[in-house]
Amino acid sequence: MINSRNNKQIKNIMSLIKQSKERKKQKKYVVEGEKMILEIPSIHIEKMYYSQSYYNEKGLINQDVPYDCIEDGIFNTISDTMTPQGVLGIIKQKVYALEDLLVSDQPVLIALENVQDPGNIGTIIRTAEGAGLNGVILTKDCVDIYNPKVVRSTMGSLHRVPFFITENIKDTLSHLKNKSIKVVAAHLKGNALYDEVDYKNNGVVFLIGNESKGLSESTALESDVWIKIPLHGQVESLNASVAASLLMYEAERQRR
Amino acid sequence: MINSRNNKQIKNIMSLIKQSKERKKQKKYVVEGEKMILEIPSIHIEKMYYSQSYYNEKGLINQDVPYDCIEDGIFNTISDTMTPQGVLGIIKQKVYALEDLLVSDQPVLIALENVQDPGNIGTIIRTAEGAGLNGVILTKDCVDIYNPKVVRSTMGSLHRVPFFITENIKDTLSHLKNKSIKVVAAHLKGNALYDEVDYKNNGVVFLIGNESKGLSESTALESDVWIKIPLHGQVESLNASVAASLLMYEAERQRR
Repeated sequence: MINSRNNKQIKNIMSLIKQSKERKKQKKYVVEGEKMILEIPSIHIEKMYYSQSYYNEKGLINQDVPYDCIEDGIFNTISDTMTPQGVLGIIKQKVYALEDLLVSDQPVLIALENVQDPGNIGTIIRTAEGAGLNGVILTKDCVDIYNPKVVRSTMGSLHRVPFFITENIKDTLSHLKNKSIKVVAAHLKGNALYDEVDYKNNGVVFLIGNESKGLSESTALESDVWIKIPLHGQVESLNASVAASLLMYEAERQRR
Repeated sequence: MINSRNNKQIKNIMSLIKQSKERKKQKKYVVEGEKMILEIPSIHIEKMYYSQSYYNEKGLINQDVPYDCIEDGIFNTISDTMTPQGVLGIIKQKVYALEDLLVSDQPVLIALENVQDPGNIGTIIRTAEGAGLNGVILTKDCVDIYNPKVVRSTMGSLHRVPFFITENIKDTLSHLKNKSIKVVAAHLKGNALYDEVDYKNNGVVFLIGNESKGLSESTALESDVWIKIPLHGQVESLNASVAASLLMYEAERQRR
């Protein structure tokens, strides 16, 4: 049992929880909680950690994964959650290629540019699965997809929705356009209503920009069409995850 | 200038930021940031507080409101935001009656039961204004609408959308039903699709339940219809603010 905060493994877990740089270097991340761990195939789990009391009461979640126990007090201080459940795993990051998002003939995709709120990214990935999307594209300057708050707010969808982190959004959009995928930007200056554009007879990728600045001009200019969501009252824009959800479910509605 | 953390006004601002009980007792709350303050008519602002450096650089936002300056270091520690702007106001709470939400003939309303995440409540109020709703109803056990995170995430809509906090959701729904307003519950066991129900030829109130437990059975039983949003993949439910937004914008679409 680990009973010192200075233990190397404890230090490593904490660095994987707190530092995006460390997650990228090791190509690993941390998932907490029983239900969340059960979503992940054992083969992707490098190691499990249990609090002493969880282990004594419930035993192992995954028989076939290496594990260690951690003294309760230490477990609670390293946990990133308000109510630690006593279970966490170190998980190997998945790497998808853009082609993994293009296996269907006329895919529906969403691309996020410089989205910064972990809750927004997580909610968009969760809704993307719910709406039946084929994948999520993120620019490199979005918040790290393996940030613990993103992981939690996907509610498990992170392990099921293919995603591609692009180094160059312009190149990625060119590639999609070559495959006849329509590039649709949610834009405050859009002139088509979001539910008056056809998302059924072609592939489509929706573009969603940064929470306060919206899409960069250069990315907006790569689009085939700028759409808008009607805004009543004095509202200037919608929350990024709300706007994304309305677009994804409009595609779902048209294709149902 | 206030330059002690022990100053009575500082202590009062902090209690209004942190304690829902204190906000309820005093019928006041705190709003931070230049843009947010500008949304509020001066008559509702009891007092303004400026950090010393904001005051020196930019002066007053509202000439006609009493104010005080606070030493920068103290201002930053009491602020509830990551990047304090140096401006906050103590605002008088608004009280609406249910009738204030019923001024239009066939209103569209949303009622939230036991919704606990401040970001969800704030986002729903913001989207409600965007979708042109007539008001938001909240049960008493929802998170306090004047919680600083709720206030921030409404992006100003809190000052424009009428809301009613009900002591008894059953009585409130009866009252709405007597006015021929259709009670529509988002429910995992719903059998009608959310976009196949008529929200145009009658008033409508959408019911959204707690993030993990959904609607209570007793409230669900008060509904005229249970609807569902299609869920692909292995998604069990959508985020509460996403589900609410899809319903509100479906009503907007039908009534456009």
